[in-house]
Parts: sequence; C-alpha cells; structure tokens
Amino acid sequence: MKLSKTILSLVISATLSVSVTAMADEPIQPVQAASGINTAQAELGKKLFFDPRLSRSGFISCNSCHNLSMGGTDNLTTSIGHKWNQGPINSPTVLNSSLNIAQFWDGRAKDLKEQAGGPIANPGEMASNHEIAVKVLQSIPGYRKEFKAAFGTEQIDIDKVTQAIAEFEKTLKTPDSRFDQWLKGDKNALNQTELAGYQLFKETGCTACHYGEAVGGTSFQKMGLVQPYKTDNKALGVYALTKNEADRYKFKVPTLRNVELTYPYFHDGGAQTLSEAVSTMAKIQLGKDMPQDQVDKIVAFLKTLTGKQPQFTLPILPPSVDSTPRPEPFK
Amino acid sequence: MKLSKTILSLVISATLSVSVTAMADEPIQPVQAASGINTAQAELGKKLFFDPRLSRSGFISCNSCHNLSMGGTDNLTTSIGHKWNQGPINSPTVLNSSLNIAQFWDGRAKDLKEQAGGPIANPGEMASNHEIAVKVLQSIPGYRKEFKAAFGTEQIDIDKVTQAIAEFEKTLKTPDSRFDQWLKGDKNALNQTELAGYQLFKETGCTACHYGEAVGGTSFQKMGLVQPYKTDNKALGVYALTKNEADRYKFKVPTLRNVELTYPYFHDGGAQTLSEAVSTMAKIQLGKDMPQDQVDKIVAFLKTLTGKQPQFTLPILPPSVDSTPRPEPFK
Repeated sequence: MKLSKTILSLVISATLSVSVTAMADEPIQPVQAASGINTAQAELGKKLFFDPRLSRSGFISCNSCHNLSMGGTDNLTTSIGHKWNQGPINSPTVLNSSLNIAQFWDGRAKDLKEQAGGPIANPGEMASNHEIAVKVLQSIPGYRKEFKAAFGTEQIDIDKVTQAIAEFEKTLKTPDSRFDQWLKGDKNALNQTELAGYQLFKETGCTACHYGEAVGGTSFQKMGLVQPYKTDNKALGVYALTKNEADRYKFKVPTLRNVELTYPYFHDGGAQTLSEAVSTMAKIQLGKDMPQDQVDKIVAFLKTLTGKQPQFTLPILPPSVDSTPRPEPFK
Repeated sequence: MKLSKTILSLVISATLSVSVTAMADEPIQPVQAASGINTAQAELGKKLFFDPRLSRSGFISCNSCHNLSMGGTDNLTTSIGHKWNQGPINSPTVLNSSLNIAQFWDGRAKDLKEQAGGPIANPGEMASNHEIAVKVLQSIPGYRKEFKAAFGTEQIDIDKVTQAIAEFEKTLKTPDSRFDQWLKGDKNALNQTELAGYQLFKETGCTACHYGEAVGGTSFQKMGLVQPYKTDNKALGVYALTKNEADRYKFKVPTLRNVELTYPYFHDGGAQTLSEAVSTMAKIQLGKDMPQDQVDKIVAFLKTLTGKQPQFTLPILPPSVDSTPRPEPFK
C-alpha cells in the first residue's frame, strides 16, 4: 500500500514535470477555463446575447452573427445586418475573445464591454440605439428582476447591459482541445501528421504572430507584409483610426482557436477553406510558396485547436409586456 | 403507522378522484408530456432546426421565426425572410404544434413533417430548395454520422430531413402550466381573478373554439364570424386552397397555450396585446362588447396557460467542409 502510493506520487510528479517543461518550451499555451466570473451578470448577459429585441427589427441578436452553434461566428463572408445590409467585414468569433488585446478587427474597442455597445447602435447591424434598447429592457419585469440580482438595482442603463453581455462572453472559452491535451503531456493526443504540421507551423514562422493561449489575438499586423493582399474589401485596418500610413491594412491577428469552425477566413472572409488560408498566409506574410503537402499538414494541426464548445441551456427570454416598445423591422 | 398509511391512502384517492372529476368536467385538458419520441431522430432534428445552412443565405434557420427562446415565435407582426422579405402572415408558435389538426394558418400541410419542407424552399422565407439543402447536409461528415444513427443510413434525403425536424418539434410540449396544475387538482394554483377569468372564458363562449389539450388548434373558423375583421392583410385562409366561398377568411384556430409569450396575435399579427386580442375576439366572433374588467380577468386567466418551456442544451452544429456548397446571401 505504502509502496504503491509512493510510486503513484513519483509518476504524478514525473508527468507534471514533463508537462510543465513541454508547455514552457512551446509558443502556444493551453486555454484556461474561464474564472472569476460574476454568475448573476453572466446569466443575464446570456439572455441579452440571445435577445433580438436589442435590435430595431426584433430579429437580430448578438448570436445572429456570433452564433454559438457555429463556432461563435456566422460562417458568412461578411455579415447580414438590418434590412439585409451587407456588412463591411467578416464577423470574428466571440469564442475566447476575452483573450484579445482589443476588440474588432481594427482594435477600436478596448474590451468586450466597449465592443458590445457597438453593433446594437450600428445602423447597418442591429440598428437600434442605446436609449431604445434600455427602454425596451426596462419595461420588461423579468429583466428588471435579473438586473436587480446582478447589479443590485432595477435601474437599467447601457453600461450594465454591456457589462452583463461582456461577462457572459468571458465564459465562452474552449479548453481541452486535442492540441491542449498534447501540450499538457498526452503524447497520444496528436497523430504524426498533426505533429508534423505543428513543427512546420513553428518553423515557417506562423508563431511569430499566432502564439499564446489564443494562438493569436495579441498583436496587430499588416495584411500583406511581404506581398500585397488582393481584395475588393474596403477596410483599411488601424489606419482608419490613426490615419498613420504605417497602419494601413494593419489588422488584429485573429485567434486560431476553433479555426476549423470559423470559416471563411481573413478580415474580408476571402479564403473559404483552411487550405487556401494557410497557403495565402505563407505567401503574403512570409514570402513562401508552400507545397500543398506542407499546407495539408498545417491544416491537420490547426484542426486540433478545436476545443470544448460552451455548453449551456438555451435561455428562455422574459416576455415583453403591453408597454414594451415594439420592433420596427420594416420602417 | 398502519392508521397513518390508511389516512394517506384515503387522502390520495380523494385527491385523485377530485382531480379526475375536475378534468372530465372541463373543456380544457392538461398538456401531456411528449411521448413515443425517436430520440436519435429528435436530436438530429434539433440540430437541423437551428441550422441556418438550410437557407440560401446561411442566415435563417427554423429557429429564426419559431424562436424557442421566445415562445416558439418571432414576436413580429409578420416574419422576416430571405433578403428581408416581409412575410405574408404571422408565424405561429411551434410549441405544442404536434397537437394541431393540420399545419400553417390555412392547414395546407397535413402534419409537422409536411410543414417542415415548406419554408426551406419558399423564396420569401429560407429561399433554398430541397436539392441544395440535402446536398449541403450530405457533404458534412458530422451530419452523415447522425443520419446513420437516426435512420440507419448515411444517404440523406428531404424525407429524412423533415422527419427529423418533425420528431424534434414533437418534443416541444409545455406541460405543467399553473392552469394545468389547477386542472389536476391544485386549487391554490390560480387566484380568484384568474378563476373568474376562466369562468368568463367559458361563459362567453371562447371554449367553442379554444378547447382541448392545446386550447385551440383543432378546428378552422371564420375570422369575423359575427362582424367582419378589418385588416390590410391579404391572406384568404382556407379559401386559397378550396376556392370555396364559405372558406374565405377561415383560419385554423390558434392554440392559446403560452399565449402570453406569442404576441402579437391573429393571423395578421394585428393585435399587439392580449387585452386587444380578447376584446376583438369577443366582438367579431361572439358579437359582444366586453367590458374592460372582464377582458382583464380573461387575460389574467390566459397568462396561467404558460407552461414549462422546453429546456435543452444549445446544439453545436457539425462544421461544413471544403466541399460543402457555400451560402449565397447577397446573390
């Protein structure tokens, strides 16, 4: 009994030591489970995230373009907004978005809370405004009760609305991908092709930008660093904010977590497949004509980054009452 | 010990006997939990119900207009379809829809399975067609696996698609409303106002059409039986199918289960509030100018028909692969 306990301890410390060493050597770290969440705010935020009454039409919710059934995206080249407006840019995934250095492709919102207010009031997206959105929520007894539980007051304002949505979004992490199992020491979690893909991913230089817990999301880079990127998309990146010529076409490096689910790729949704995306990146960012067999290996590796998707019960929304302002989808 | 057991038995039989008698006397029966469900088909159907890839745009799913967060409706006057098309009629709730005598307002689909194929191919709704929808699903390995589990074959066709959606929809029953608790013998489940409302509901004649497990859904009636119903809506009801003059403006009587959640009301969504709906119904169907205090009581009763909403984990959809036909939202 004593002996086997000792052996077990040795095995455990050996495993931990290998695992810690492995992780310390790698440019990518495992996704940590969400922590420090205010549960009442996050539960309220979940309802708000799914509530189309935050839009003018009563038809579009946060989940419309950041669909949690589909990797936190809409899988469209660019999104559909109010009155079928064609959005200017590809919807980034909301999964693991708390790890981003800033929000939106150009980083113009400093955090999830600031981001959440944007689409509600954007005429081409949800096309409401903060005043009406708050008025709608304030009229609904079920929401008043939940704001009271989450914030200690029934008095709703846009600050609390976006705070709750952000708190929910912080829960949307995707730990336990096969790659993370491998990182943590399970050497059977990846096959030889996937491992070879990871080696190529590092050797080719992809990890210069795609590193850390989110495998991206922590820096801004020019799209077309070595060769210009050809696109009809009009987005100028960080330049639109700074008017600094060096920021032209500079975008936030997207996370590669769950990239198998978040097609199509790039800020313009211009790459329909992972294979196309890897090949284009190699060429325009790193100046390499990557042979297809290498592309295939990297794609195999990238598919191991699909983590455990957030699992939760579909929220039931508190109903409007007679005094609730009604949606205006066709006005 | 023996005595208390006997007393307990007596109490139980007394309660049961009251309860059975009460139910037998009433025109409304409690919602029964769904039974005889093929679980593999229903689980697959749940994914299909939430999958916008069944639409041409990749943006509209069954859940868009029959939103299970909002009483199985979109809470819009009429629905929004492909390219923001304004639908011709109010989306009826999918909750308890298995109890309907037929589907759609005019009953043109004989059952849920037949209904499910309609919106997918309707140019003003999901705007796809059955061939493309099947091709999309057939290309997706995760779906092939689930069809194999549900139907014993990976060979997908529209018959299996609509069968699976219908099987999921059959699970969407809402038992255990306060009214059903009262029906089953819990005399404290309703307050005096609600009970008075139920008495008025019966005495006024509402139960001539709104009866049974779904409190409606089992007959067709002319909208405007006593006085013509004024609306700009162009729907002709059953007449559109039969060209029989007696069927003009004849629509399926909607269920009143969860009616607190399924605003706005009528086939044209013309009544924004329950109060307005009750008042209009009394006038045009029964020829009564109902005093507001009576309307209020009936509304109080109607709100006791909100049952336990279906609770399930938001489905995670299997991702498309390189060969999956892509959505065409703007073509």
